[in-house]
Amino acid sequence: MQAPTSPVSRRERPTKPPLSKEAVVDVAIALMRAEGLDRVTMRRVAAALDTGPASIYVYVASTVALHAEVLDRVVADLAVPEGGAWQDRVQQLLHAYGALLDTHRGLARSALVVRPTGPAMLGLFDALLGLLLEGGVEPGRGSWCVDLLLLVVTAAAAEHAEPGRDDVDAPGEPGDGLAAVRAGIAASGPDRLPHLAAHADVALSGTPWQRAGWQVQAILAGAARSPLPETEVRP
Amino acid sequence: MQAPTSPVSRRERPTKPPLSKEAVVDVAIALMRAEGLDRVTMRRVAAALDTGPASIYVYVASTVALHAEVLDRVVADLAVPEGGAWQDRVQQLLHAYGALLDTHRGLARSALVVRPTGPAMLGLFDALLGLLLEGGVEPGRGSWCVDLLLLVVTAAAAEHAEPGRDDVDAPGEPGDGLAAVRAGIAASGPDRLPHLAAHADVALSGTPWQRAGWQVQAILAGAARSPLPETEVRP
Repeated sequence: MQAPTSPVSRRERPTKPPLSKEAVVDVAIALMRAEGLDRVTMRRVAAALDTGPASIYVYVASTVALHAEVLDRVVADLAVPEGGAWQDRVQQLLHAYGALLDTHRGLARSALVVRPTGPAMLGLFDALLGLLLEGGVEPGRGSWCVDLLLLVVTAAAAEHAEPGRDDVDAPGEPGDGLAAVRAGIAASGPDRLPHLAAHADVALSGTPWQRAGWQVQAILAGAARSPLPETEVRP
Repeated sequence: MQAPTSPVSRRERPTKPPLSKEAVVDVAIALMRAEGLDRVTMRRVAAALDTGPASIYVYVASTVALHAEVLDRVVADLAVPEGGAWQDRVQQLLHAYGALLDTHRGLARSALVVRPTGPAMLGLFDALLGLLLEGGVEPGRGSWCVDLLLLVVTAAAAEHAEPGRDDVDAPGEPGDGLAAVRAGIAASGPDRLPHLAAHADVALSGTPWQRAGWQVQAILAGAARSPLPETEVRP
């Protein structure tokens, strides 16, 4: 037998915000800004929306897919530069993309493993491909080149984010990864690493962005000169 | 008052294996072979060695550092190719590295975010740098180029590993990422993606390895032609 209880109207509770893919991504972006993308999981987004994870999976298929949605939303703000040589515009657009990744903690590392399928990332790919076509690079080679250019910038942003990263699960990780590289070169010595030991200073010179800038330049110079191998078009 | 118990000699228990960095990495590699590197955590390695995580941190500072040790151990098996043009030897060595990453589930994705500081990874870097120097590329440019070459191959291996990946936390992730890209291109349409829509077949052609092979070729062609910017040597 149950004890009689005084009824509570459901209308006394605060209204929950309606669920949608937009709302899920909004919350994910707010969480990312506060704590970094590494901390953005389906479970936490669900909690912030006052619901269970199962309700979130209706809108986004997985954490990986959620991070891809966040990336796409952030990239939607990019504008394609106008005027100037096509190579300069490629560099400017890539620089703007790298800066975007750089201002959102954890986003670059996620972008390294996410395949772009959202409208904004495809738009960025399309804009870069358009610039390469304008420069006389043929479409197949240009596409593989865009692939590489985005990879270079994403990796540089991920590396640049490293010193402040908070995903390391124990103390003792050196703050400056380069100090560890130098120590490794010294530990192996010039017998085992003749070239690195002889050229350590130039080998470790430059910031991730300087390196990426040169790499982009080298890729653009090489792309126009390298014939595409025969490939089958995938079904 | 305690009830009397018959004493049990500690010698009746099986002997625990002695702890060492070697033993920790051995267990991590065995776990990786069985379940993939994503499942290799300090906690699980500790459990397999019949001890607590704190005892493992004495030998390896973090999960990231543990994965770096695993990578270094695996790469130690690489042999530098002899004979032939330097460009061909660069391609052969990178191909062997990519194949190694490819046969160890989860290793490529980890290698994407790990900075190489172990003797074997530095040895691979040194061997590639040596080949570029042999080809007349100057040391600073050569080092940034090696950086890029390793990135390209690691990213291709990570992408190649994608269809079988088991780190996706929900069903509904498309097995073939390219199908999602095609769907994305179709959804945006030729007005928003004029270049991609016009060249989708060539843009999505080739396997990750074919693409990486061409990218390496383009990078080598471009590296020799691109001057290095003025950079400060980091302290």
